[in-house]
Amino acid sequence: MKLPNLSAPALAPSCDTPEMRIAIAAAAAGAAVIVDYFERGAEMRWKDDDATYNLVSDADIQSEQAIAQVIQSAAPGHAILGEEEQSGSTAAEHLWVVDPLDGTNNFAHRIPHFAISVAYYHRGVAKCGVVVNPVRSDWYLAVSGGGAFHNGQRMQVSPDTRLDQSMIGCGFYYDRGTMMESTLAAIHEFFKQNIHGIRRFGAAALDLCQVADGLYGVFFEYQLAAWDFAAGRLILEEAGGTMTTGRGDELPLATSSVLASNGELHSAALSIVGKFHPV
Amino acid sequence: MKLPNLSAPALAPSCDTPEMRIAIAAAAAGAAVIVDYFERGAEMRWKDDDATYNLVSDADIQSEQAIAQVIQSAAPGHAILGEEEQSGSTAAEHLWVVDPLDGTNNFAHRIPHFAISVAYYHRGVAKCGVVVNPVRSDWYLAVSGGGAFHNGQRMQVSPDTRLDQSMIGCGFYYDRGTMMESTLAAIHEFFKQNIHGIRRFGAAALDLCQVADGLYGVFFEYQLAAWDFAAGRLILEEAGGTMTTGRGDELPLATSSVLASNGELHSAALSIVGKFHPV
Repeated sequence: MKLPNLSAPALAPSCDTPEMRIAIAAAAAGAAVIVDYFERGAEMRWKDDDATYNLVSDADIQSEQAIAQVIQSAAPGHAILGEEEQSGSTAAEHLWVVDPLDGTNNFAHRIPHFAISVAYYHRGVAKCGVVVNPVRSDWYLAVSGGGAFHNGQRMQVSPDTRLDQSMIGCGFYYDRGTMMESTLAAIHEFFKQNIHGIRRFGAAALDLCQVADGLYGVFFEYQLAAWDFAAGRLILEEAGGTMTTGRGDELPLATSSVLASNGELHSAALSIVGKFHPV
Repeated sequence: MKLPNLSAPALAPSCDTPEMRIAIAAAAAGAAVIVDYFERGAEMRWKDDDATYNLVSDADIQSEQAIAQVIQSAAPGHAILGEEEQSGSTAAEHLWVVDPLDGTNNFAHRIPHFAISVAYYHRGVAKCGVVVNPVRSDWYLAVSGGGAFHNGQRMQVSPDTRLDQSMIGCGFYYDRGTMMESTLAAIHEFFKQNIHGIRRFGAAALDLCQVADGLYGVFFEYQLAAWDFAAGRLILEEAGGTMTTGRGDELPLATSSVLASNGELHSAALSIVGKFHPV
């Protein structure tokens, strides 16, 4: 596919902070690597499984290196917690949480729905977050207290007050055992509430942005890593949404089940997601 | 969201037939209507459910009228079978099969993944097909014997030979009873075969194009209408894929279950989709 130019997003004055500028530059550096590998993949897609695996793995590692380089150069001494580089402690005063390629499986299968996610936390509190789908040039940004924006337009969660008005997003962890069974049982129960439909797009950071942007009323997944949701969570909250664990507890900056919603639907969704939560 | 201009697709010489030019013009006319309503929806999304329903319904009807007008003007006397106008008989010598808005539910929830589908059949045989996602400017075209193209690039199905290398797309019919249960049971069984993942994007015509383009190895849904797959089927077959009913029978140009694949995976997928087929 022919890719659009990845231009920098419009930046609302309320989002124009020094950290946001670093986050955007870092995400753009990662995005450039990912797009380059995506185009290379078009040439080698008919090779064997190992070649595809290596391409995906290299894209992931080099994207994270490019992101880390921007952060380290602009903010020396800040800690980084990423999928590849897990040395940064969540207790660090200045912490960047990075997913260099969210939606790896889509990337490998050439489904143009994947993202780079960068968040900045100060003393454990999210200050800004960026999620970008580089092949669609879709930028989602949020600054704490400054609102959330999709390509420059303010985002707001859906006004749905009932599950039977709502579209539900979900994710399946790679696990093919209990967690898969729990997810299918929860989907079954959602359908019984006459939801409009289930969607499974395969990139959690973008799923959270789709709740923030009002496309889904609810999103749930029984296991995500901190880097999958560190930016998306702030984006969702700044758009008026709510995010907890799948049991309704405060979400830690660590591997957890997640339930994201427009707020209105949270307790109705929790009664289903919590009921089938793996032990 | 800011929409790209919907420019006409590049047309490979092998696809440049009089009927294809009519099909593209017809699809573009429908697409213009849909994009107009999509932009209007952005302004009224916070209104009540009835307003949304009316908007979607009006978009559907007016898109089909625009498509029919192009066909009737360019090919007077040809029959048209569409979601809104079902007078065209599948026995007509010259038949156009039209879906003016595939992925209605996505459109209603502002998920930018829906399409217009136009196919031309001569004496019951598909001659050309067009599927276009108007907000992404993604054009999928095929002419019988002339190959299938995505935005001007030749499409080819994935080379996967085993389910455990493959991404599987699926659809849920609106039914919340037996068909939903069957779909979930089939998904469960696919997971047990260690597939790479399940995707549910919510627009069948585009799902078929995603199999044609090698993104999915398999797609199945237990009920689709003729206009959902009339164009997508030809696009898939011209890209090297196979499509049957969910029981493995020859697919009629009528409401049916469907199984689409890259060919290689058809019998493995059929053993699952057929096993859980609703009676």
